[in-house]
Amino acid sequence: MIHFRPIFFALGLMLCTLASAMVLPAVIDVADGHENWRVFFTSAVFTFFIGGLLILVANDDSPPRLGVKEGFFLTTLCWIVLTAFAAIPIAGLGLSYTDAYFEAMSGLTTTGSTVLTRLDDLPRGILLWRAILQGLGGLGIIVMAIIMLPFLRVGGMQLFQMEQSDRSEKVMPRAAELTLAIAGIYLAMIVACIAMYRLFGMTPFDAICHGLTTVATAGFSTHDESFGFFKSAPLEWICIFFMILGALPFVVFIKAIRGHPSALLKDTQVRGFLMFLGSVCLIMSAWLATVHGLPFGEALRKATFNVTSIVTTTGYASDDYSQWGPFAVGIFFLLMFVGGCSGSTSGGIKIYRLQVTSLLTRSHFVHLMSPNRVVTLVYNGRRLPSDVPFSVVAFLAIYMSTVGLFTVTLAAMGLDLVTALSAAAQAVGNVGPGLGDYVGPSGNYASLPSAAKWVLSAAMLLGRLELFTVLVLLRIEFWRN
Amino acid sequence: MIHFRPIFFALGLMLCTLASAMVLPAVIDVADGHENWRVFFTSAVFTFFIGGLLILVANDDSPPRLGVKEGFFLTTLCWIVLTAFAAIPIAGLGLSYTDAYFEAMSGLTTTGSTVLTRLDDLPRGILLWRAILQGLGGLGIIVMAIIMLPFLRVGGMQLFQMEQSDRSEKVMPRAAELTLAIAGIYLAMIVACIAMYRLFGMTPFDAICHGLTTVATAGFSTHDESFGFFKSAPLEWICIFFMILGALPFVVFIKAIRGHPSALLKDTQVRGFLMFLGSVCLIMSAWLATVHGLPFGEALRKATFNVTSIVTTTGYASDDYSQWGPFAVGIFFLLMFVGGCSGSTSGGIKIYRLQVTSLLTRSHFVHLMSPNRVVTLVYNGRRLPSDVPFSVVAFLAIYMSTVGLFTVTLAAMGLDLVTALSAAAQAVGNVGPGLGDYVGPSGNYASLPSAAKWVLSAAMLLGRLELFTVLVLLRIEFWRN
Repeated sequence: MIHFRPIFFALGLMLCTLASAMVLPAVIDVADGHENWRVFFTSAVFTFFIGGLLILVANDDSPPRLGVKEGFFLTTLCWIVLTAFAAIPIAGLGLSYTDAYFEAMSGLTTTGSTVLTRLDDLPRGILLWRAILQGLGGLGIIVMAIIMLPFLRVGGMQLFQMEQSDRSEKVMPRAAELTLAIAGIYLAMIVACIAMYRLFGMTPFDAICHGLTTVATAGFSTHDESFGFFKSAPLEWICIFFMILGALPFVVFIKAIRGHPSALLKDTQVRGFLMFLGSVCLIMSAWLATVHGLPFGEALRKATFNVTSIVTTTGYASDDYSQWGPFAVGIFFLLMFVGGCSGSTSGGIKIYRLQVTSLLTRSHFVHLMSPNRVVTLVYNGRRLPSDVPFSVVAFLAIYMSTVGLFTVTLAAMGLDLVTALSAAAQAVGNVGPGLGDYVGPSGNYASLPSAAKWVLSAAMLLGRLELFTVLVLLRIEFWRN
Repeated sequence: MIHFRPIFFALGLMLCTLASAMVLPAVIDVADGHENWRVFFTSAVFTFFIGGLLILVANDDSPPRLGVKEGFFLTTLCWIVLTAFAAIPIAGLGLSYTDAYFEAMSGLTTTGSTVLTRLDDLPRGILLWRAILQGLGGLGIIVMAIIMLPFLRVGGMQLFQMEQSDRSEKVMPRAAELTLAIAGIYLAMIVACIAMYRLFGMTPFDAICHGLTTVATAGFSTHDESFGFFKSAPLEWICIFFMILGALPFVVFIKAIRGHPSALLKDTQVRGFLMFLGSVCLIMSAWLATVHGLPFGEALRKATFNVTSIVTTTGYASDDYSQWGPFAVGIFFLLMFVGGCSGSTSGGIKIYRLQVTSLLTRSHFVHLMSPNRVVTLVYNGRRLPSDVPFSVVAFLAIYMSTVGLFTVTLAAMGLDLVTALSAAAQAVGNVGPGLGDYVGPSGNYASLPSAAKWVLSAAMLLGRLELFTVLVLLRIEFWRN
């Protein structure tokens, strides 16, 4: 049996938090003298009312019991319901609810695809709201990835259980303490990012909005030209630095703060991520410098910014890289699948899964040449738990099938192959921009049919919750006793 | 140490066989009174000379010793060298050696991509030669997949060892007997196919050429319009039947002949393949009938023919299916990855690998809901050997990475994303046609840059030899003692 009471209680708490967050855009719209503050205020009251009701109904003196099943159900439900409420003030702007839901999902999942155009002319309240959604979404993801997913053993995440000895069936009681540590580090990064942006020339408002969406590797901008609006090399380098920070495993940050600063340099995933990112940036820079004749400094910056933006699944663009020729387009397409590190705000397949797969492949080569040799799989200095390879493999299989299925679904709605394929891949990877005229870095998702927006919303949700968290709910066995 | 002597001896034998095969096109060109017979005759003499030389040099009274390393080396070397000689008479037509090598590789790997245009005006000798190459290639693949690959344990092929008790380090001595059985079945199918084609209206020459390339699931035609030239429903249904036969596991045919006819119906792979193929054909038929308004009979035939052609990796086209809209294009793109059954002439990932992966994924779902339950993986009525899942996973990872790498390489040569991606996917899967204006079902590979043709030749070779057979040679450890 699933215990619904603690689930509704937790959901109520989160709705109240969301409602409180809606007050901020209302305040800024009041300060600007913009009518739109009413939308935010009404939405806040409504959301707070529903959230409060849930808390009252589900409140109970017995200690909350969250088992595996409750964990799956709560995580998926939260994301769907919070998105539904977060979309209300966006719909209040005059958009259809489909568009608003898409935008809110893109925000909370830190994807960064947008259906809004003429961003520069919008009231500041809505721009702030989009940034806040991504900031909250980013925090939610890290907490989920560090506390919930290892406990649920989704897609090999058991590899990152903070306490290897703690293998009880209940979420560890230290969850609150960990959440605080994560939130502290996350907030500190955002503040540092905002300060740097301000220092190098952004307006305070732009600095706040971009600070929130950079560390969350999310990608909403306050300008139609995205990050290209600022035309500032120092700002781009600052952004690169904080996008990378956001894509690193927060578990390692916690370890570093707890007195093991070397953890950051010794971690296999961090090293693999930085080496991979560095190589791709260098290759792309060389391509831009030689084939497209850019001065090397400019080539290095443009390549590094856009490659980092896609690999960390942020999705800012400083340039329309679809104009960089087929080679660059091919690379950017593949990069949509990679993603950052586990327990970060980035999406995609993630580095550790690629590393585990590469371990398996290498051991198969050894096995081919010497069938009788036994190969021990070692990852990050520890022997790989026996269930991790299968979990990773199941994840990869479902990941690729999901992208394939969404591609065909979008194609059935009339999207051409490049658009359908890249839109599906970016949505499941929570990247933001796709490829082609419609969904590419200089395009906009507004022109897609309504059905496609719902499909992409589902794809973003699936990808964000590491697929299995959602898919497990679709199995009959889950609902049996 | 690798023993080169038996390798060269085997290679010599195969070159002499190839040389004998070259006599047939020479004969038909003589009969047609076409000058081109000289090309085939000279090529035959040259190939026979080199082959004979190798046999003489490498002949040895000691029994041949073929271990694992010799197996890998021989298999890869054979395919490269035989292609080099098979290309000579094609180059004699006035083509560049690049084009000739591409065409020969496409023939021997039963891919079916062509750089030749105006097929209908070519001398019949060359058309027959292309068909013979695919016929020989198909036989070579089945023998390799049934005798060599399970012994080499490539990509989970150990699942199909004919004798489960025979786990010695040497290729089983019953290889000759098995090869004869395979060749007998294969030849019987080709003869039956030719007879049916003739009966339903093909010229004897067309029937022979298409009989060879149908059962080999290869796809070279004698007409620019491919199978669409015949405009005959019965011929298309016959072709569908024999393409499916060619894509079924020959091991099961052998079992059926040895007194277990029910093996064909009970085999998990056969059932999975037929069910998958049937579902896709029905979906595509429904799409053509409803959205494109075709009469259902015509829709069923067109859909079944072209879907079967791609899934079995044959590559005939009866229609330009890229005109069927984005949904069909999306489906055809994904179908390029699937392939037929193991131990058949078809390419792609192959059904059993997808089935094993799906077993892993389902067991992960069970594991997620009940972490302590132990799940036994059962495939085709037997417990899955413990090394098979990892082999399959390593194969899938390398397969996708190879397609990705070839896509980027082709894109760097200036091919657009759809062309590069579909050309890479079809080449590694040995399908034949890709997507887009250049390499699509109504396009031609002639227009690609020379470098791209070499890259695609390498991709066809890699895919045909199940990747690992070639890649293992690129590892330093392989050459160490």
